[in-house]
Amino acid sequence: MDSMFENDTICAVSTPSGVGGIAVIRVSGPESLMIADRIWRGKPLKDALSHTAHLGNIMDDENVDEPLDQAVATVFRGPNSFTGEDVVEFSVHGSKWIQRELVNLLIRKGCRLAEPGEFTRRAFASGKLDLAQAEAVADVIASSSRSAHRLASSQMRGVFSKNISSLRDELIRIASLLELELDFSEEDVEFASRDELTDMAQGLLRKISGLVASFSTGNALKEGVPVAIVGEPNVGKSTLLNRLLDDNRAIVSDIPGTTRDTIEDTVEIDGVLYRFIDTAGIRETADMVENLGIQRTLGAVSKARVVVWLVTPDLLPGMFKSLAGDILKHLPEDAKMIVAVNKIDKLDGVGDMDVVRQDVESLILSSLGGDNIADNRIKVAFISAGQGINIDELKELLKVCSGAEEASEVDMMVTNARHYEALLHAKESLKRVIDGINTGLSGDFIAQDLRETIHHLGTITGTITTSDLLQSIFENFCVGK
Amino acid sequence: MDSMFENDTICAVSTPSGVGGIAVIRVSGPESLMIADRIWRGKPLKDALSHTAHLGNIMDDENVDEPLDQAVATVFRGPNSFTGEDVVEFSVHGSKWIQRELVNLLIRKGCRLAEPGEFTRRAFASGKLDLAQAEAVADVIASSSRSAHRLASSQMRGVFSKNISSLRDELIRIASLLELELDFSEEDVEFASRDELTDMAQGLLRKISGLVASFSTGNALKEGVPVAIVGEPNVGKSTLLNRLLDDNRAIVSDIPGTTRDTIEDTVEIDGVLYRFIDTAGIRETADMVENLGIQRTLGAVSKARVVVWLVTPDLLPGMFKSLAGDILKHLPEDAKMIVAVNKIDKLDGVGDMDVVRQDVESLILSSLGGDNIADNRIKVAFISAGQGINIDELKELLKVCSGAEEASEVDMMVTNARHYEALLHAKESLKRVIDGINTGLSGDFIAQDLRETIHHLGTITGTITTSDLLQSIFENFCVGK
Repeated sequence: MDSMFENDTICAVSTPSGVGGIAVIRVSGPESLMIADRIWRGKPLKDALSHTAHLGNIMDDENVDEPLDQAVATVFRGPNSFTGEDVVEFSVHGSKWIQRELVNLLIRKGCRLAEPGEFTRRAFASGKLDLAQAEAVADVIASSSRSAHRLASSQMRGVFSKNISSLRDELIRIASLLELELDFSEEDVEFASRDELTDMAQGLLRKISGLVASFSTGNALKEGVPVAIVGEPNVGKSTLLNRLLDDNRAIVSDIPGTTRDTIEDTVEIDGVLYRFIDTAGIRETADMVENLGIQRTLGAVSKARVVVWLVTPDLLPGMFKSLAGDILKHLPEDAKMIVAVNKIDKLDGVGDMDVVRQDVESLILSSLGGDNIADNRIKVAFISAGQGINIDELKELLKVCSGAEEASEVDMMVTNARHYEALLHAKESLKRVIDGINTGLSGDFIAQDLRETIHHLGTITGTITTSDLLQSIFENFCVGK
Repeated sequence: MDSMFENDTICAVSTPSGVGGIAVIRVSGPESLMIADRIWRGKPLKDALSHTAHLGNIMDDENVDEPLDQAVATVFRGPNSFTGEDVVEFSVHGSKWIQRELVNLLIRKGCRLAEPGEFTRRAFASGKLDLAQAEAVADVIASSSRSAHRLASSQMRGVFSKNISSLRDELIRIASLLELELDFSEEDVEFASRDELTDMAQGLLRKISGLVASFSTGNALKEGVPVAIVGEPNVGKSTLLNRLLDDNRAIVSDIPGTTRDTIEDTVEIDGVLYRFIDTAGIRETADMVENLGIQRTLGAVSKARVVVWLVTPDLLPGMFKSLAGDILKHLPEDAKMIVAVNKIDKLDGVGDMDVVRQDVESLILSSLGGDNIADNRIKVAFISAGQGINIDELKELLKVCSGAEEASEVDMMVTNARHYEALLHAKESLKRVIDGINTGLSGDFIAQDLRETIHHLGTITGTITTSDLLQSIFENFCVGK
């Protein structure tokens, strides 16, 4: 049996690491009340009702004269706890020293330090959460924007799992029809009409394909939508970046990369987290042409979901044209581009504006191709980053191009790479099912592919698991959750 | 009335800032249950018993379809809560986003964001803690070593306050005797014999002086004992520092100063936190003489509580001798010095060792003076930082020289600069009381000085406060405590 399913009692600090007013140390397992009472001076916790909080002192066996801390112990009795086991949560003064000493003390008294995600894993093991819900717990904790939170939270509440389960149930229904037929194969009966089966399978395939397709947006919303701001020197890339960041200064954060090259600024705009790719490049080199500027630009483009190509009216006929082909070649299939004409405050009147608009449109037409505009792959904006003109319109375009606009109306998206892979496999085997039906393949083979499809969907919610799979899922959690 | 005593309801994140398994948002005030119920979908918290925890959903008025989070709300009804008021603690998933949104939501629903330390201040205002205890809450949270924690924790439990109060009570007894006498002054009675009064006052003065004297050690134990490792180039300063840090790597932390010059390494050794002064200097410049090396050394010495002067057998007659006078001049009055002879592994046999020992002792005698050895101001150690020889002995000497050894046997020490100042004032006015009695000063004047002494002691526990004082104390707390 997997060591993590051993019936022991675990403990860990569950609040963020660091110093704070209070910190919570969580204990879970069959002996949690007994171990807690070994260090508790106050009303015995073993006699406490579930969901009650008690003031008392934590006593250290190495210093019997003075309590380690005054604390509140809250008792949750299994199965009515997060893990489904007996749980004690000690709320102590949040010094690093107390947190460390209390964990050490609990370990001396019989606890084991929890592995990453082990509380959640126990919640899964005791049936409090299915696997997709358990995975969403980590996503909820990591969420840093409204849209990411919304996706993770609905998955945690089981919306995603319910949908996956109902897909799986439909497949099982098809499979049982087919297998019934196989049982009677000698009699050459056909319980399910081939057309009916095809229709059902096609319907499921559409749903699964939709989910597969949603991953690219779902994952971007979860991790932050990668945006590349590119353009020739002095078109105002750095000004635009600062404008977008400054407007939302309160929630700006840096994600320091491993190298200077991958420094990214992130910002939440209207509920969506954007990651600006390679802002070091934007900020450091004024000249795109020098210092591998073009390579860098193309690199950023290839990682982007939205490319903001910044031009100025006077630079329109310049390098933009010559690079446009390369840029398009590097633009990922599902990425979008916004051609943003900057410094429009420098134009004289409406007449000028119209000329520029025509210039831009004909340029896009000739160098990027009309198709791209028609299928909404390229949008155009007229802004002034310096003067803050039309920045809200640009933000709205970012939201549309990132897919966030659409996503807010969709019930459910795939945000998890593991689920994506399982759905891809399910999609492939379901396609084989449909091909099999169409080509009149024997029921045995079709049933085999169906079972495979069912299996892949089952791995998502954890109907089917292996301990390796569980290990790899939960090792990415933080300790204490 | 002070704005902070307004009867409103406050909220703040009470757990350390950052991302974690769970975070706790605390609400306190007369309307906390009512406000909490406005965002709570679950059993109404206003009907909940004190000290009970409830599972439910936090609903955001800006998104009525989906809960902000599933949470546990724990209700503490005043006066049986930390603040003495009605308190609700929401335990939520510890994403930064959820923490921020929940605080914003509570503010929209009628809470005010708590000022730093306001929960503790309310605990003081409602008589749950006296002022010295309230101050200790911040110290407990900041403690990063066993000895610092012990001092802060006992102060938080009221041990310190009880002692101060009993000193104050004795003074009040003396004062009432004196004032009774003043009431009957026309009759020229003497209720208190002058000798008796002097004895009582002298006894109190000794206690107060002891407390005043304890501040230097108490403060060092609380903030980390400043240690300067000094010595000529290539004696192994950096090796020794790394040896002391490495042995305790798990709990080493850096305290980045405002400038490169003040980088300090801190480490807890055997329950005591040491701050190594100017480790940037130790690490950067191999040569003490260059780059203001001597100035830097003397600067470090003047800030130290323990100076480790590192020498090697072959360098004994060198600069050590010529600098010794300067070093001693800069050594703070209550600081100690350890002359550590390094690289003893390079010596051949016991004979060599004896020669070195004699050399060192005569050198200390001639250049530092025998008095310093006699009064334990200078200790000698023979070590090898590289080979790890006698490092435990050096650590033991550090403990003795830091005062931590002695402190562990003392009931109570002053660790707080405000208390120190109040005690200094009390000491001065009490001295005037004794002088007054001895010189036969009229009872009026003596009583005046006594009242002043009583006043100063009263400010420590908060019997006497002003809102400015409270402001300055609590503004140094973290928000959420």
